[in-house]
Amino acid sequence: MKKEKQIPAVGYYQCLPINDAKALVDIEIDEPQLGKYDILVEVKACSVNPVDAKLRLKLAPPPGKARILGFDAAGLVVKKGKDVSFFQEGDAVYYSGNLLGQGSNSQLQAIDSRLCALKPKTLDFAQAASLPLTMLTAWESLFEALEINKASKAKPKKANLLIINGAGGVGSAAIQLAKQLSDVHVVATASHEEGRAWCKDLGAHSVLGHGSSLEKNITELGIDGFDYIYCCYATDVYFQPMARLIKPRGKICSIVDAEKAVNINLLKAKSASFHWEFMNTHPALITDAPGEALLHKNILETVAGHVDAGLIKPAILKKFSPIHANTLKQAHALIESQKIRGKLVLEGWA
Amino acid sequence: MKKEKQIPAVGYYQCLPINDAKALVDIEIDEPQLGKYDILVEVKACSVNPVDAKLRLKLAPPPGKARILGFDAAGLVVKKGKDVSFFQEGDAVYYSGNLLGQGSNSQLQAIDSRLCALKPKTLDFAQAASLPLTMLTAWESLFEALEINKASKAKPKKANLLIINGAGGVGSAAIQLAKQLSDVHVVATASHEEGRAWCKDLGAHSVLGHGSSLEKNITELGIDGFDYIYCCYATDVYFQPMARLIKPRGKICSIVDAEKAVNINLLKAKSASFHWEFMNTHPALITDAPGEALLHKNILETVAGHVDAGLIKPAILKKFSPIHANTLKQAHALIESQKIRGKLVLEGWA
Repeated sequence: MKKEKQIPAVGYYQCLPINDAKALVDIEIDEPQLGKYDILVEVKACSVNPVDAKLRLKLAPPPGKARILGFDAAGLVVKKGKDVSFFQEGDAVYYSGNLLGQGSNSQLQAIDSRLCALKPKTLDFAQAASLPLTMLTAWESLFEALEINKASKAKPKKANLLIINGAGGVGSAAIQLAKQLSDVHVVATASHEEGRAWCKDLGAHSVLGHGSSLEKNITELGIDGFDYIYCCYATDVYFQPMARLIKPRGKICSIVDAEKAVNINLLKAKSASFHWEFMNTHPALITDAPGEALLHKNILETVAGHVDAGLIKPAILKKFSPIHANTLKQAHALIESQKIRGKLVLEGWA
Repeated sequence: MKKEKQIPAVGYYQCLPINDAKALVDIEIDEPQLGKYDILVEVKACSVNPVDAKLRLKLAPPPGKARILGFDAAGLVVKKGKDVSFFQEGDAVYYSGNLLGQGSNSQLQAIDSRLCALKPKTLDFAQAASLPLTMLTAWESLFEALEINKASKAKPKKANLLIINGAGGVGSAAIQLAKQLSDVHVVATASHEEGRAWCKDLGAHSVLGHGSSLEKNITELGIDGFDYIYCCYATDVYFQPMARLIKPRGKICSIVDAEKAVNINLLKAKSASFHWEFMNTHPALITDAPGEALLHKNILETVAGHVDAGLIKPAILKKFSPIHANTLKQAHALIESQKIRGKLVLEGWA
């Protein structure tokens, strides 16, 4: 039997700290098999998100098998499954994919075409690869979970939104989406001066420091509560302040697991609600049945349109090249340090 | 100074178990003063809800002052504040009122007219007094918190709703509202055969037992999850089953404080949400500003219309007469026993 062409990729066999030489390793894989809705993408650039480091540390692959991370990519369609109707070979696409499948740290990736869109025309591959996970997460949080568009139109007074950790990847996406695509008043928090300037630049109406002075600072702004709170950092730490700051019948959305138990009764007197956003809910459930929702495809298409119209911009990028275990380890180490602002993108193959 | 006419009422001075002679006592009060939006109501009937017993046991009045419970009444308008535009003297009204104010266990009660509506014409005072708290709570839960009407129309497949403890006061109201005013498929739970028959009679499409067999029974119905779950009993006990039974992006609403910590992370993988409903959120916040929302007034008017149209019926009543400390203590004891089905109503004065 003829040996297939081997594809370079980066993966891991065991959950190891990033300073371990084997935390991420260069591997070679067979060309991925395509399902009927899959496209085979030649990955030109991929980005690293906090979830990459979290999975690398917590989710061990089966013994002897390598798991390939990477939940953001931009690249070219090189082959397609029999029922793919959206793309042609040669199309430049971008996507975040599915946390359960093999990721984009691979020169060729099989990906469900219903989770992909044509990349923004005005961005290069590295810039495009920085967008999907944060934009999908922020979009679903604001428009599917919090439904900021529906509610703000129904209210006589302009609704307001607090974004906790506005300078992070998802927070940055949320500031732009809320500012450009809704009429809510956006207040963001950021811990450092540089982050606060970045939030302002993205369009936040007000920007505040985190921590103990947060509520005091909010009162000083003349704000007596928020219709919507979007928590992109330490849900358990912010749960009590959020319970105090949310308005009656207000909505809180979080993307961060609570590491300690929270007291949900705190929200009862205000008839408030708590919403989770997990970007993988949709990809994990998509089936081969006809008529499946094209949620991610549609969101990414809309985001691409807004990017090309100049309304939304990618984060500042820190780029690494080529895509390789060494560069990827640097990126993982940086993301674990939580000291990075903007997005970490890797591009090209050796 | 001339002594004003004294009004009979039932109240308490200390938090005492219901078998204590002083748990509830007959008192006399001055005629209540009216705020500008208040009406003075001659209470013809009032009902007892679980919140009455809870407050009697937990919320001590200031030393030497009596607190009057009762959050449901029907009666006649006998006087009105200067800015009351909705009612005339002699109008028959029904309302639940405000948990913070003095309640309806009093022959005369001052109540904000914006929380009241004309009572259903086809009901007597006792029947009308059985409705407000349960109908307001169920209405706000289904249509304000869960928004079952909005979502079910947008979905191609008929949405479904699980009501935990459908035979209770609020559950019974919720079954009827969901059945009559939305197109969701209603599944209710009830612990005893009699309660299950009652749920069926109210319009539930399916009725199941509680407890360990609940999930098995649901699977046997061919249901793989719920778009909406409405928890009217033991939030902490049902939290894990609800997390398993809720569909992706489904909504859970509860009216019962969690007595133990719950793990909200259980809802994250499904991007589900948890909503509190507390009927007093609106009354506690209503101000004297012009243009305040007439939420409770509007809901009670709509419910009255549906009752008079024969779509909604009051629960089976257990009646006590007259309204007096002794009868009220019997009703509190019964509600504390949790063995009562239907509503406890007191009518008339000695």
